[in-house]
Amino acid sequence: MPRILPTISSPADLKSLSFPQLTELAAEIREELCRLAEKRSIHFASNLGVVELCIALHTTFDFTKDRLVWDTGHQIYPHKLLTGRYEKFETLRTQGGLMGYPNPEESGFDLFLTGHAGCSVGSILGLACGDNLNHPEEKRHNIAVIGDGALASGVVFEALSHAGWLKKNVTVILNDNKMAISPRVGGLAHYLDSFRMNKTYLSVKNEIHRLLQKIPRLGKITEKLLGQFKLAVKAGLLGGAMFEELGFRYIGPIDGHNIRRLRKFLTMVRQYNEPVLLHIFTEKGHGFRPAEQDPTTYHATTPAIKINGRTAAKTVTLLSDSEEDTPKIPFSYTEMVRNALFRHMKDDRRICVITAAMCQGNMLEPIRDLFPDRFFDVGICESHALVFAAGLAKSGMKPVVDIYSTFMQRGYDQIFQEISLQNLPVTLLLDRAGIVGADGPTHHGVFDIAYLRPFPNLTVMAPGCAEDVEPMLSIALQHDFPAAIRYPKCTAVKISEDFPPLEPGKAQVLRSGKHGTLAACGGLLSNALTAASELAFDGFDVGVVNARFVKPLDNVTLLEPLRQGRFLVTLEEGVLAGGFGSAVLEAAVDEHLDTRKLYRLGIPDHYVEHGERNDLLADIGLDVIGIKKTVLKMKNG
Amino acid sequence: MPRILPTISSPADLKSLSFPQLTELAAEIREELCRLAEKRSIHFASNLGVVELCIALHTTFDFTKDRLVWDTGHQIYPHKLLTGRYEKFETLRTQGGLMGYPNPEESGFDLFLTGHAGCSVGSILGLACGDNLNHPEEKRHNIAVIGDGALASGVVFEALSHAGWLKKNVTVILNDNKMAISPRVGGLAHYLDSFRMNKTYLSVKNEIHRLLQKIPRLGKITEKLLGQFKLAVKAGLLGGAMFEELGFRYIGPIDGHNIRRLRKFLTMVRQYNEPVLLHIFTEKGHGFRPAEQDPTTYHATTPAIKINGRTAAKTVTLLSDSEEDTPKIPFSYTEMVRNALFRHMKDDRRICVITAAMCQGNMLEPIRDLFPDRFFDVGICESHALVFAAGLAKSGMKPVVDIYSTFMQRGYDQIFQEISLQNLPVTLLLDRAGIVGADGPTHHGVFDIAYLRPFPNLTVMAPGCAEDVEPMLSIALQHDFPAAIRYPKCTAVKISEDFPPLEPGKAQVLRSGKHGTLAACGGLLSNALTAASELAFDGFDVGVVNARFVKPLDNVTLLEPLRQGRFLVTLEEGVLAGGFGSAVLEAAVDEHLDTRKLYRLGIPDHYVEHGERNDLLADIGLDVIGIKKTVLKMKNG
Repeated sequence: MPRILPTISSPADLKSLSFPQLTELAAEIREELCRLAEKRSIHFASNLGVVELCIALHTTFDFTKDRLVWDTGHQIYPHKLLTGRYEKFETLRTQGGLMGYPNPEESGFDLFLTGHAGCSVGSILGLACGDNLNHPEEKRHNIAVIGDGALASGVVFEALSHAGWLKKNVTVILNDNKMAISPRVGGLAHYLDSFRMNKTYLSVKNEIHRLLQKIPRLGKITEKLLGQFKLAVKAGLLGGAMFEELGFRYIGPIDGHNIRRLRKFLTMVRQYNEPVLLHIFTEKGHGFRPAEQDPTTYHATTPAIKINGRTAAKTVTLLSDSEEDTPKIPFSYTEMVRNALFRHMKDDRRICVITAAMCQGNMLEPIRDLFPDRFFDVGICESHALVFAAGLAKSGMKPVVDIYSTFMQRGYDQIFQEISLQNLPVTLLLDRAGIVGADGPTHHGVFDIAYLRPFPNLTVMAPGCAEDVEPMLSIALQHDFPAAIRYPKCTAVKISEDFPPLEPGKAQVLRSGKHGTLAACGGLLSNALTAASELAFDGFDVGVVNARFVKPLDNVTLLEPLRQGRFLVTLEEGVLAGGFGSAVLEAAVDEHLDTRKLYRLGIPDHYVEHGERNDLLADIGLDVIGIKKTVLKMKNG
Repeated sequence: MPRILPTISSPADLKSLSFPQLTELAAEIREELCRLAEKRSIHFASNLGVVELCIALHTTFDFTKDRLVWDTGHQIYPHKLLTGRYEKFETLRTQGGLMGYPNPEESGFDLFLTGHAGCSVGSILGLACGDNLNHPEEKRHNIAVIGDGALASGVVFEALSHAGWLKKNVTVILNDNKMAISPRVGGLAHYLDSFRMNKTYLSVKNEIHRLLQKIPRLGKITEKLLGQFKLAVKAGLLGGAMFEELGFRYIGPIDGHNIRRLRKFLTMVRQYNEPVLLHIFTEKGHGFRPAEQDPTTYHATTPAIKINGRTAAKTVTLLSDSEEDTPKIPFSYTEMVRNALFRHMKDDRRICVITAAMCQGNMLEPIRDLFPDRFFDVGICESHALVFAAGLAKSGMKPVVDIYSTFMQRGYDQIFQEISLQNLPVTLLLDRAGIVGADGPTHHGVFDIAYLRPFPNLTVMAPGCAEDVEPMLSIALQHDFPAAIRYPKCTAVKISEDFPPLEPGKAQVLRSGKHGTLAACGGLLSNALTAASELAFDGFDVGVVNARFVKPLDNVTLLEPLRQGRFLVTLEEGVLAGGFGSAVLEAAVDEHLDTRKLYRLGIPDHYVEHGERNDLLADIGLDVIGIKKTVLKMKNG
């Protein structure tokens, strides 16, 4: 049992602790993280990596006044433990409990509810500028902690460039663990690697300094030229040239697991009144050997992973030919899509896959390993992923961009200009569309239907069941237009052994009903089928349609119940405003049908909290009980 | 009259020309640009700046095989003149004529239809990777030309980092004219400035080289350390360290107006098989003195600007106190909004304005000049603009982000996470919402209602007339929630002298009608009023409602005609899929109203071409005639 941690009700309680006690506290925090990781899926390795940094920050600054933003926010757990949330820590990532990301509603120490990468630098720059205008006397410190993975994100570069220009008092701590969610990539990563210098680094630095002193003796070079030369050497050799060039003072790199050293440098940084980048090296998974050795697998844990010393099982399933052909257990949509993609890639050398640091999340490792020349992980750069795909398409390839629905938002403008407007054959795979569960509102992929549907040229599909996956991917890959396929984070239910083939642009009537029909868009189809079966027991004959296509919409099939004067309930795991139900509604009105018997079920106009996916769906009325309730209301109303 | 230009039907015709002839051709191209600028609004200074570069590129590479992408694309005119479009050049930016941006439908020499900045580097990288996989034997060269303004865009950094990593054969030509649309800003800009070295630069370079040779004599430093030292000095001193660090070979800077020198360096670049950044200096407006001296004003010309030697009038109206209070001439929405904002800023020190290189376009110069500490132009970095605004809001400021509707798309994910999800009091001003005219499909701001409406917490407004502007801005600025105001690129019509005050969340009935009602969202209100007046002549009594609020929607007022069994036509300058009309429809169905008498007018599911705004609106049926036609159809159907 922890000894110190329970006594910390706020960061103020840390002030009285000695260095050995702080070190003990770090160990207790790690124990706490391991304990929780045994119970449920949490972000693990990244949190182990920032324990010392978190302690050093809270003992050097006063964040009741100063500002601290953890970029992305998945590494916020130690911060939560030190800011009065130790007792609730057990509830992390459960409905009604603590959120797995920063949450201003939980604590004043959390400034922004985040989950998407790259916004910390711009946020603290805004805070610094605002303070400067409002309360220049307060001299607050604004600190962003950002990982090397998020650093690659374009919006960070935009913010660094702006901050370097404005010369405001902002401190960016680059938490460099050489490991984004996936092994990092990109020229930037290579650049950061160059800091991991060999042991001679220090002696080189000293030698150069000595040399610089001697140079004037060489002759007629003027003082001015020498000044330029020295500056150049400093920038080029002592590291951080890129940041210095953008206007930052670069400090580091230093060991991010040494509390004493961290505090020394943070105290130094406090004295500056300018943009500073403090570069620290940490180990993802520090203090827990299996996670240190395999931080990608341990980026997020599942409870299946044994923590306390026992060997951990890999969660990643590797494809074998037999598995691929005869799935024995129910597959997730993610796996089904990956397997279908894999098969297509074997047959068609033009197909290539692009992801943005979601190789593991989208289970793409087998594709990466077997088709390394046609697999591109661009890092946390969704905008670029889409532009890059457009270029590939123009060269004659068939690019597939495989990104979570919520992160695809980061390339909205590129979907518009590079893909829809050019009408290029790029396939967008939107994984985790709908309610994702414990990650909460930043990660629910609920806007995609509403934002994709208005783009001309784009076909938008949503598989209702396992059987839809393969033919939908075939449509996307075989045609010469852009297409999007969105699917939820759940098991892909197999509906029947002899399933009729998918007809392009057509919805599928799975069950006809003389009282009315449920039209399901995507994975809610299985709930609709169950609801219809249960309603049949009660004497209500309700049909079920698998919509399949959001765009083009199969008006003929979908609107038939309205034409017959029967009720129609649309179901979608997406926002009601402008979603699939609205598309059906628009079609009905264009056809001058009476829409009084149309009801739309979907995500209402508020953010959905975190919790178990099925519990959240039930709260919104999208589970079997909720669907039945709606049907009964329609039947009686 | 040009002598050489008419003989150039394709770049192949350039091969036979001598250097003096190429120089003459450059002069002829400039003449052509000046001739057109006298007639209509075109992108001017940027095109004058790339004349020599364009000639050098087309005489060094063979773009029937190699690939050339002009970033953003507004500087494509010389390229169009050299690729078989001289005879049609007269039609540039007119409906049915040449587009003002690259357009693959016009020519195989244009690869992508662009207009938004920053995608050239990612596109050519995709092309290079695709070629490598498909036709490795062809060894095509992929070249992007990007200005220093667009270079600041995050997606470019993402692409540079990826290209530097992949080490593909791509050439990025940085067209550095020290002048984005607005005077450039940011640490990156400062960095680029450092290349504009004084005259001693070359002698420094030589001196340093000499020094580097001498250093080994100094003593016991090892060869290895010396190697590191030399590399560091090279990177730090000879320029381009940032690009070198990302994995590019940096070459330059060189004079971008010297065809002979450009060709020499381009020929050199052709030999490399790796990512190269060639840095060239150009003058925006080169060869036309007024534009050289004031490139911001001459970024785009209006026909009012006299070209041939005569002094040009500034198009920018500067605010005076008298003008501000009593507008004598009809103002554009842009001006009205700016003036209202200006008044609010005088009274409330918390209000600050952020734009993204649209200071001139949004007529914000007076605000920039009078409130320099509360005005932030972040350059072409829309994503960052929104994050930065969120930070400002959190510090207690009232930030206003003033960006064209089409460019606000580039911050979609930031509107989601940083603003809507945090529920922060940020005001979004979406200028040029709807059909913009000659800039065409990349610039029409038609998606905003559909993409903003699904976001919880966000209020979405659209002024129907001049009188709405001030009260809408007041609502946005006085309340503690995020709000968006979208308005078109046209004159803000003043409706009456004694206009009733705007009620928050309420639509305004301007005219009641016993046959039915037109519900206008935004600037189409004046067309609706005219249509209703004209219909009254014919005995049709049609009401007109000014919707004002897209979200929250005033169901009570808007749905009244349907409740009365009368027809309702919704009008919007936005996409029909998920737009304002759909919001009305959703509300009607939620209220179980009969929607058979509802008709939605807006932008159908295809991209709208370029042309005069009013002509394009007429084509879509959104002019007075079109609205009347729809009403008559409703009346009779």
